[in-house]
Amino acid sequence: MATNRSFAQGPDVDTVAGNGLLHRRMFLMAGAAVAASVASTALPDSAAAEALPVEPWMKLPGSGFVGYGQPSKYEEKVARTWNTAPGTTGAGAARTPHHLLNGMITPNGVHFERSHSGIPDINPETHRLVIHGLVKRPLIFTFEALARYPMESRIAFIECGGNSQLLYQKEPAPVGVQAIHGLVSCAEWTGVKLSVLLQEAGVDRKARWILAEGADAAGMSRSVPLAKAMDDALIALYQNGERVRPSNGYPMRLLLPGYEGNMNVKWLRRIKLTEGPTMTKDETSKYTITLPDGKSLQFVLPQEGKSVITQPSPGLTMDGAGLYEISGLAWSGYGKITNVEVSADGGKSWAKAALQSPVLSKALTRFRIPWRWNGGPALLQSRATDETGYAQPTREKMIAARGNRAIYHSNAITTWAVSDKGEVKHVYA
Amino acid sequence: MATNRSFAQGPDVDTVAGNGLLHRRMFLMAGAAVAASVASTALPDSAAAEALPVEPWMKLPGSGFVGYGQPSKYEEKVARTWNTAPGTTGAGAARTPHHLLNGMITPNGVHFERSHSGIPDINPETHRLVIHGLVKRPLIFTFEALARYPMESRIAFIECGGNSQLLYQKEPAPVGVQAIHGLVSCAEWTGVKLSVLLQEAGVDRKARWILAEGADAAGMSRSVPLAKAMDDALIALYQNGERVRPSNGYPMRLLLPGYEGNMNVKWLRRIKLTEGPTMTKDETSKYTITLPDGKSLQFVLPQEGKSVITQPSPGLTMDGAGLYEISGLAWSGYGKITNVEVSADGGKSWAKAALQSPVLSKALTRFRIPWRWNGGPALLQSRATDETGYAQPTREKMIAARGNRAIYHSNAITTWAVSDKGEVKHVYA
Repeated sequence: MATNRSFAQGPDVDTVAGNGLLHRRMFLMAGAAVAASVASTALPDSAAAEALPVEPWMKLPGSGFVGYGQPSKYEEKVARTWNTAPGTTGAGAARTPHHLLNGMITPNGVHFERSHSGIPDINPETHRLVIHGLVKRPLIFTFEALARYPMESRIAFIECGGNSQLLYQKEPAPVGVQAIHGLVSCAEWTGVKLSVLLQEAGVDRKARWILAEGADAAGMSRSVPLAKAMDDALIALYQNGERVRPSNGYPMRLLLPGYEGNMNVKWLRRIKLTEGPTMTKDETSKYTITLPDGKSLQFVLPQEGKSVITQPSPGLTMDGAGLYEISGLAWSGYGKITNVEVSADGGKSWAKAALQSPVLSKALTRFRIPWRWNGGPALLQSRATDETGYAQPTREKMIAARGNRAIYHSNAITTWAVSDKGEVKHVYA
Repeated sequence: MATNRSFAQGPDVDTVAGNGLLHRRMFLMAGAAVAASVASTALPDSAAAEALPVEPWMKLPGSGFVGYGQPSKYEEKVARTWNTAPGTTGAGAARTPHHLLNGMITPNGVHFERSHSGIPDINPETHRLVIHGLVKRPLIFTFEALARYPMESRIAFIECGGNSQLLYQKEPAPVGVQAIHGLVSCAEWTGVKLSVLLQEAGVDRKARWILAEGADAAGMSRSVPLAKAMDDALIALYQNGERVRPSNGYPMRLLLPGYEGNMNVKWLRRIKLTEGPTMTKDETSKYTITLPDGKSLQFVLPQEGKSVITQPSPGLTMDGAGLYEISGLAWSGYGKITNVEVSADGGKSWAKAALQSPVLSKALTRFRIPWRWNGGPALLQSRATDETGYAQPTREKMIAARGNRAIYHSNAITTWAVSDKGEVKHVYA
């Protein structure tokens, strides 16, 4: 179907930054003269209804009901991709296809997954959660017991500490948003505030940390400051309305909004209150940031402010010059996103994107800005600022601070190069 | 596992209404003395960790990664239930199991579904959307064309006009929240504002309504006031982040926030601008409200303010006296929910429930209040008020206004009776 591209040659109405970035009112103000010609095709009125053929699916009744539905068979490419550690069956990570999604919620079927020894097949009837250590009254909970406590819901992202680590590499990886940034997802989590359970157990005044341990074969465990546990930590029982998925911790996981992904311990079985951090294998041999001098930063816990353009991005080829919407995701483990700027000229000029409301603390935030692609080369970037004033660094700045030996907490600006053929690829700029 | 029920015999701390409704600070204030004894079991400290057996799933690596994940096999009961019209394969309705969910998002797998001739198996490559009729420039869109327009996301409920119709029956149906109220769900919908497309087409000044037609075998179609189309209507392409599910209109549906469910036309193929309503079969033979005098109300479009307690509710048996959380959902097609009150004594006394933030216009709103069940009979009710000041009516008041011949727009207060055995059933009170 031909696309009307006349607007691509039109006047510079509402340009807000170089190489075709436009003001959002572009689309919102009235008038066919302005809004026309994005991508529709005009039809003579008499032909309009008749031009629509009666498709085969309108000639026979469709399929019946099912108890638990699935996506269309035409959407099979909307799937996680993964790497498994050699010699293992389920140690590795599976990534969310953000280039094929839109909005802020990640559907449960493609929420990212990082597992250290596969997904345990847990029987919820026999699973228990214990709270012990430096408490006055150690407690043990079944799922049914927890379900009687007051619940809270919050929409929160979880991001693996190792997400986006490809940006530390010297050469740009020839891959897209899923491979580079697919270890972050966002869901509505519902559960019991950990502080309520800790109050019931009675926290000893010597306690300063907790140890959270999973019921997987790896016994994945992390130390968490007690202050975080008493602040906004949840024992999450539900994910986007339904029970937490097996790959995300069924029947219960720890939710530490904004903190490194693996601290949100899945298949949670034990919380032990301690004086100091336990120094588990998962916070000593891994999940520390190695600096150029060989020293490591440990317990860098919240994920820093960050953003990425999801559309267009590698794998999504542009269909000729004309109007498009640039869209992406921004997030910060320190609170709300307050600003996202977009550049179409590799960072020479920037324009403010619209943020989709509601903008929630420690949740993915969708940003959008219209763009008139002139058909020539372009370098697309986004840069997020959070409510603490922290601004996402350029890759150059991140590497200057961290060197190339780090693999965690990569949050640099990502650049997508658009070629004159409309192909999009990952570059450093 | 035994439950400590001592609090059930405790003093009347923080009672806010009859029969055990408590102030929410019950759970939020510090102090084991108050918070203790909800449902946990105490353990001697030395036994706490050791008491947790090493379960079989901790002894072997778990399962590996899959592209598109599914719920736990232990959650098979979290499924829609449905009625199919006799002699058809897919005409009927499938209901959301709200008693087994929590939060405000309905996961896509169990979003309710009302189909008039089954789910068409639509190939998105050949599907088209036409806008024609009283426009200056009729237009035709592919999915890819629409995907270049500016998108918006909003979390919105959709409710079938026929939801809760069992409350019009003379005797209380011996069923629960899924059978009575399961034809409402809530998702994050993302798509293109219809107003942008209509501006591009150029609305003729004679146009006052639109006709929206689906590509199912029933050709389900409804008339919508142009003012609604220009206000907050979306052509929804994504549902909770992923492409709209087949049962919910793949590859695109109309979203009319707050309006009767079937007006949110699924499998949308055509929008025709007209001077008046088209008077389709789906707005004349059905979806009108028959009054006691035999006359019918037509084009009653927004769904009225409403609420229901989802936990406890029939099918969820109470596990002995003690502390519980009463939780439920409230919504209004006229805007935000501003207040939900709960009664545990059949409406004699009421207490204000906490509303989960963010409270969004025309979205499901989760409400919660703690309850100390004394082990005796109780009558649980909830009553919602929306931002227009409209308050959900008692069933008596609804029947007085509408009689027993109506089947649509039922929004009366629902009563769950709790017996001294902890069984919950639907009653009129």
